[in-house]
Amino acid sequence: MKDFKNQNIKVIGFDADDTLWVNENYFREAESAFCQLLAEYQSSEVLMKKLYEVEVKNLELYGFGIKGFTLSMMEAALEICGLNFSASISTEIIRIGKEMLDKPVVLLDQVEDILRKVRKTYRVILVTKGDLLDQHRKLEKSGLEGYFHHIEVMNKKSEADYRRLVSHLDLYPEEFLMIGNSLKSDIIPVLNIGSNAIYVPYEITWQHEVPTEEVLTEGYIQVEALHDILRYI
Amino acid sequence: MKDFKNQNIKVIGFDADDTLWVNENYFREAESAFCQLLAEYQSSEVLMKKLYEVEVKNLELYGFGIKGFTLSMMEAALEICGLNFSASISTEIIRIGKEMLDKPVVLLDQVEDILRKVRKTYRVILVTKGDLLDQHRKLEKSGLEGYFHHIEVMNKKSEADYRRLVSHLDLYPEEFLMIGNSLKSDIIPVLNIGSNAIYVPYEITWQHEVPTEEVLTEGYIQVEALHDILRYI
Repeated sequence: MKDFKNQNIKVIGFDADDTLWVNENYFREAESAFCQLLAEYQSSEVLMKKLYEVEVKNLELYGFGIKGFTLSMMEAALEICGLNFSASISTEIIRIGKEMLDKPVVLLDQVEDILRKVRKTYRVILVTKGDLLDQHRKLEKSGLEGYFHHIEVMNKKSEADYRRLVSHLDLYPEEFLMIGNSLKSDIIPVLNIGSNAIYVPYEITWQHEVPTEEVLTEGYIQVEALHDILRYI
Repeated sequence: MKDFKNQNIKVIGFDADDTLWVNENYFREAESAFCQLLAEYQSSEVLMKKLYEVEVKNLELYGFGIKGFTLSMMEAALEICGLNFSASISTEIIRIGKEMLDKPVVLLDQVEDILRKVRKTYRVILVTKGDLLDQHRKLEKSGLEGYFHHIEVMNKKSEADYRRLVSHLDLYPEEFLMIGNSLKSDIIPVLNIGSNAIYVPYEITWQHEVPTEEVLTEGYIQVEALHDILRYI
């Protein structure tokens, strides 16, 4: 088993949503509210399928985040309801979106204690994607801002994004370790540029974050909960 | 008149929207389309006033950018139309928003030539605010990416944002010069942290970017067009 203690790791990047704090649950709640709102028009199954289809179609234009998700709920509702689409449906979708933006930040699993320990030995940064304002707001609400030397909000968490980050930090790829809950965003691209990764699965994963290709099962460490990372670093 | 040539400027930050490329015009076009769409319900004057009111109310939650603007158009239309709000109005608002996101990037006034000259002597960075994805997409479309050593997308362009930037770049405030078209975002907060600024007004300014307090008229240089900055640096 890989052990990072004797390696040359200088900077550790933490993903935020569903690694440090609860996020995906709020999307699941919003989807439930969406299905309830339109229950008279279609089954939850059809509604969820349509919403996902619209979300993925709009990803390139809207990117990740709650505002794009809200606009996609609106578009999906329009396609489902046709001329039955109403002021009250639209108002409710806007309300669901605003409620999501205003959710409290709930920290996971001993996060603060873990960060306190890790930063004694490493430079710690936050590496997230999505909406800039929303991520900064969550960080502020979290009270964790002081633990991070640098905050990076990326477009996509692509290999190119990570390559730019590592170069911006003046690091060799092997000096960087990423920790996160998404194989697709936090683990695979990081390994592909020659950096290191620890995978901490969360209880739920958005369909789009599940890799479609066969996933490599080597080259990274998987742990059950965030505090388990302390055994390796 | 201030001359930066013999000063200790090391890094020059350029604002993007309406400094390097056309932006505000697209919002004006969208507002016209919005007024035309709802012309049977209210006068343009009332519609514009309502839209602005909703935009400003939502700024804290949505931030700056096209997706938030689209959601605000939706909300304003709901308030104006009440039960007359329809599927076709909602569809059209989503279309207006998507069209904005898909607009070409039109460079202003000899931009590429100016950047080529300036980067011979200074480190050049891009300092913008708004939607991360949208700003990165515009930068990519602009073909200007290679001119910038660093891209900073800020939440608000507040004094705190600029202070963080200058510290992140390991600069003394007086070593930084900001160039942009908004007194409120590009000039005043920059002067307030002890850095330098050149103001290049654009033909139109969003109402919210017009400072409400009495504006200092000292401490910065104002030029008519971007290429005029070359006389001072």
